[in-house]
Parts: sequence; structure tokens; C-alpha cells
Amino acid sequence: MAEFALIEKYFTRPTQADLGVGDDAALVRVRPGYQLAVSADMSVAGTHFFADIDPFAVGWKSMAVNVSDMAAMGAEPKWATLSIALPEANDAWLTGFSQGLFACTEQFGVSLIGGDTTRGPLNIAINILGEVPQGQALQRNGAQPGDDIWVSGVLGKAALWLQYRLGKQDLHEMEASMLAKAMHHPQPRVALGVALRGIASAALDLSDGLLADLSHILEASKVGATLDWLAIPKPQLQHSRVSASMMQGAVLTGGDDYELCFTASPKHYAQLVALSVQLDVPLTRIGQITAAAGLHVFAGQNRLEWSNKGYTHFG
Amino acid sequence: MAEFALIEKYFTRPTQADLGVGDDAALVRVRPGYQLAVSADMSVAGTHFFADIDPFAVGWKSMAVNVSDMAAMGAEPKWATLSIALPEANDAWLTGFSQGLFACTEQFGVSLIGGDTTRGPLNIAINILGEVPQGQALQRNGAQPGDDIWVSGVLGKAALWLQYRLGKQDLHEMEASMLAKAMHHPQPRVALGVALRGIASAALDLSDGLLADLSHILEASKVGATLDWLAIPKPQLQHSRVSASMMQGAVLTGGDDYELCFTASPKHYAQLVALSVQLDVPLTRIGQITAAAGLHVFAGQNRLEWSNKGYTHFG
Repeated sequence: MAEFALIEKYFTRPTQADLGVGDDAALVRVRPGYQLAVSADMSVAGTHFFADIDPFAVGWKSMAVNVSDMAAMGAEPKWATLSIALPEANDAWLTGFSQGLFACTEQFGVSLIGGDTTRGPLNIAINILGEVPQGQALQRNGAQPGDDIWVSGVLGKAALWLQYRLGKQDLHEMEASMLAKAMHHPQPRVALGVALRGIASAALDLSDGLLADLSHILEASKVGATLDWLAIPKPQLQHSRVSASMMQGAVLTGGDDYELCFTASPKHYAQLVALSVQLDVPLTRIGQITAAAGLHVFAGQNRLEWSNKGYTHFG
Repeated sequence: MAEFALIEKYFTRPTQADLGVGDDAALVRVRPGYQLAVSADMSVAGTHFFADIDPFAVGWKSMAVNVSDMAAMGAEPKWATLSIALPEANDAWLTGFSQGLFACTEQFGVSLIGGDTTRGPLNIAINILGEVPQGQALQRNGAQPGDDIWVSGVLGKAALWLQYRLGKQDLHEMEASMLAKAMHHPQPRVALGVALRGIASAALDLSDGLLADLSHILEASKVGATLDWLAIPKPQLQHSRVSASMMQGAVLTGGDDYELCFTASPKHYAQLVALSVQLDVPLTRIGQITAAAGLHVFAGQNRLEWSNKGYTHFG
């Protein structure tokens, strides 16, 4: 199958664009009064996902991690390009992959407007564009001492599943499949990100682990933080035995959560509790920003120690 | 070296953006009255370039092929993201690569505003964004019967060098190095693309070979074309023997030219000759658009035949 036929067959759907797939570039219009938010994420077989993973999940997640970056900015995701290197043109794989990819774009109103298809070791590079009203983006540098620290959802699910898949953690079958869903079908928090405009003083999405990612907010905002281990929402497993250190590792330093972590003045507490109900997204206050530098985690009076903050590709 | 240190060391330079590298997304503003042009190109070691090629050239060319897509739309390139998978963090390679990449961005006024760095087989995915005044983009679907067909520069240089590198063509050393330059340091025709707004009825950049790429214009515009082989600008080699069939293959079906091919009404002939002088870019009329479908190449009275239209990744 020629490159153009492949693009036509798997990667062409109706778009919200002045000009979509098929020319040297796509053409779109950004609404007056809006900034364009631009982000890119690359997913590599063997690094980001096991080569034998369901291609639908690979398609969903490759797009979802990009949509999640828009959520983290409080931007509405609008357009994306897909550059993909494939070892071969395998129909079953491409069908599943493109279905997963478009399931995600359609859920979040994203148009695939272009890209590139080439031969090579499997690599999926997506670039996403979104719109955010001028000056209202959620950045990392606005956290203030005294601000509450919040997270959406439950942390550590995907990381626990990874330990299971690597043979380092036993799990009850039903619970393993619940955790696998978190790894393979993350739900970008777009509506939450939009709702946090004007409320959150800083925000990002959790991809490399809570401690590593929160550290970016602390560095950008020149502040510190204390976290309450007991408050952090953890996977509730009734049928599997998970040691305390395994659970701490997964929740604090595991990656692939794709939940939002944000800071907000305590005056917004009730508003955030109401928002959690309204959006049906768990929001939990897990700590506080401090003027003193450093990131400390307490379980009651005990301070937790850890050796590894999170995932890094060239550590 | 951690991922963030690597990005900081090699890939962070001043940008024209409201928010550059370092948050979940970059933020930029598109000028009122302009459309955003969006394109993406992926370069894979072993597919697009030999693994032993000078990393400066890899950096230059990975960016240049994206800039060339903006030129082909008549857009001004403005912003780019780089997603790169690296087998290892090799300082010498990254230094050369980033210098080549930024040499290109700086020459063409492009800001690198974000991206992703990960471990994996070498793969360079660039997404480029540009601005074009509303309604003035150069598309592929406007060619009219009677229009002249033009190309910039000289075709077939990079393709001849590839045959040399593959051991299928002998070349005098000096001429080989002149052709290598065309392969590794293509010059995107941005100023030409901008100048062609309102003049060209259709345009694209030549990456897969003249016949294959021109066919895209013909299909999109529902027209045909005849080309004059004798008029097409070819490499002038004084010291190397190149057979007629090798030269035809390189010029007509070889890839990697990154010249513009465009159509324009004959009434613009004198204007285009003047533009060629003004921009110091060779512009040559090589044929004509026909109402009848089909793409034919004549050398005087003889019609040339060919077996393979151009490069395809999954052909």
C-alpha cells in the first residue's frame, strides 16, 4: 500500500479546519482573543508501551497524553498532527490503532489535520494545538505559600499495573484489569482544566510521578511543599496484597497518572469541592505550598523518605 | 543526564512566544487576519538519512524539510516543536544536531517552542507552524489548463548523490561534494513562496520527485500536464559521466529536491522572470497544464517513458 493510500484509509476523517489533510500544510483559524497552546509528545514501542499492547490502547493513549497537556494548561484541545513510523503496513494493527486514536479525538473534539507516515521502528509523534483565552492559561509558576495542593482522580494505578506486568507485584486478576485500564485508557481532565481558569494558581498533568512533577511547580514558583501521605487518593485493592513501600513508590514516584495536580488559594476550597461534584471528578486536597524550599511528605508525624523521584529517560 | 537537563543544554534558545519551552504547552499568538499553517515531517535514521551522516546536516535538514512545507503554502514559518527519540545521550551528536537545527531556525525566523525527548531508535519528528494572510495560501487545487508550470532551482542533485552513495553512479569528487550539499543542506524557498501569493495558481514543494509531486497538483486540480525535458534545469556536471537514463531518473523521479513547483497563468511570465532576478533564485518554465488528464514528458518530438514515479514508503 502506498503512503497516500495508507493515510487515506486509516487517518482521514472530517476535520474542523479551513484545509485538512492532503496539502503541504493544513490551515486553521485561531479565535480572536485566544492564545494558541502548542505541545508535543512522542510514544515509542518498548519505551512507552509494550510492543504487544492492544493497538486500540496505543492509539487512545498516544493521543490522550497530548490532550492531557491541553487540560493542564486550561486549554481546549482543537487540532493535532500525527507523525508515525511503522515497521510495516499491518492492517489489523493500523485499524485498531486508528480506531483508538479517533475514539480519543472524537471524545475531546480534536481534529486530526495532518502529519507524516514513514517506515521505521514504531514511533508515534503527536503534536497538539489548543485555544485558551488570552492570559488565562494555567502555568506552573504561580503557586503561592499557603496555597492548597490538589490532585484529581486516584494516583498510582498505572504504576502498580506496570509492576505487575514486570512480574514484581502479584495482583488479583480483576484488580489487575482495573489498573490496566488506568494505564491504557487514561482520561484527560479537559473539563477540569477549563474550569480551573481563574482558580488554580499553578497546574500540570502528572506523567512522571507526583513528586517529580510537583517539583516542577515548586521550582517554577520558587516555593516548597508539604504533602499528607494519608490524604493522597490511592488505589483501593481488596483482593491483592501490596506492601507499604510498593504503594508509596507507585503513588509518589510512579508515572502515567495523567491526573491534574494544581495549587489554589484556600479561599477556593468550597468552590473546588462543588466543582468535583459537578464534573464527577474526585478532587482531593493533599498538601500545602510553603515559603521554605523543599518537598516533604508526612504520614501523621512521620516524614517519609524516598530514593527516586520519578521517571527520567536519560537518568 | 536527565531529560530536562538535556533539553536545557541542547534545545533551549530564546523564542518569539508568550510562553516557550518548560510548561505543559507553549503559548503563542497568531496575528489577526492570518491563518495558521500546520505541517509535520518525521525523519528516521536508515530511512531518511544514513546513520553516519554529519549530525549538523541531520539537524539542518530535519528542520529545513518542515520549513519547506511552509514555503510551499506561501506561509511565513514561525514556531516549531521537536520530538526526538535517541538511542543514547551522545554529546558530540547532540551538539552537532542542535547546531544544525538552530542554524536553520535562525535563518528562517523560526522559534523552537517545545517538544519531547525520549529514548528509542533515532527518530526526529518536527511540527511547524506558520502564518499566512487569510485566503492567500498556495494550495494544490488551483491549476488551470493553459497555466505554465515552473520550478525553482535545479532538480535531481540530491537524487544523483544518493545513487553515488549507493555505489550505483561514479562521480568526480568535487561534483559529488557539490551534490551532497544539495542532499544535506536544502534551502527552503520561503521568500519565493511568500512572493508567489496572488501569482501561483497551485504550488507544492518537491520531496518525492517531480513527476510524483506534480501528479498531486494534477489530481487536486483535475487537469493534466506536458513537460519539456529539455527545459527542466538539470545538474551540470563537467567531470562525471552520467547516462541519460540515470539523469532522467534523478531529475524526474528522484526525491529530496525541496524546490518549489508551481503553476501560474502565462500573463505572469515577465513578473516571474523579474522575481527570479530579484530573489536570486532560478525560476524555469518547464511545461504547461492541459485540460486532458495525464502527465507526459517530451524531449522535442519524443515522448519519454518511465516506470516509477517517485519515492513511496510503503510501495
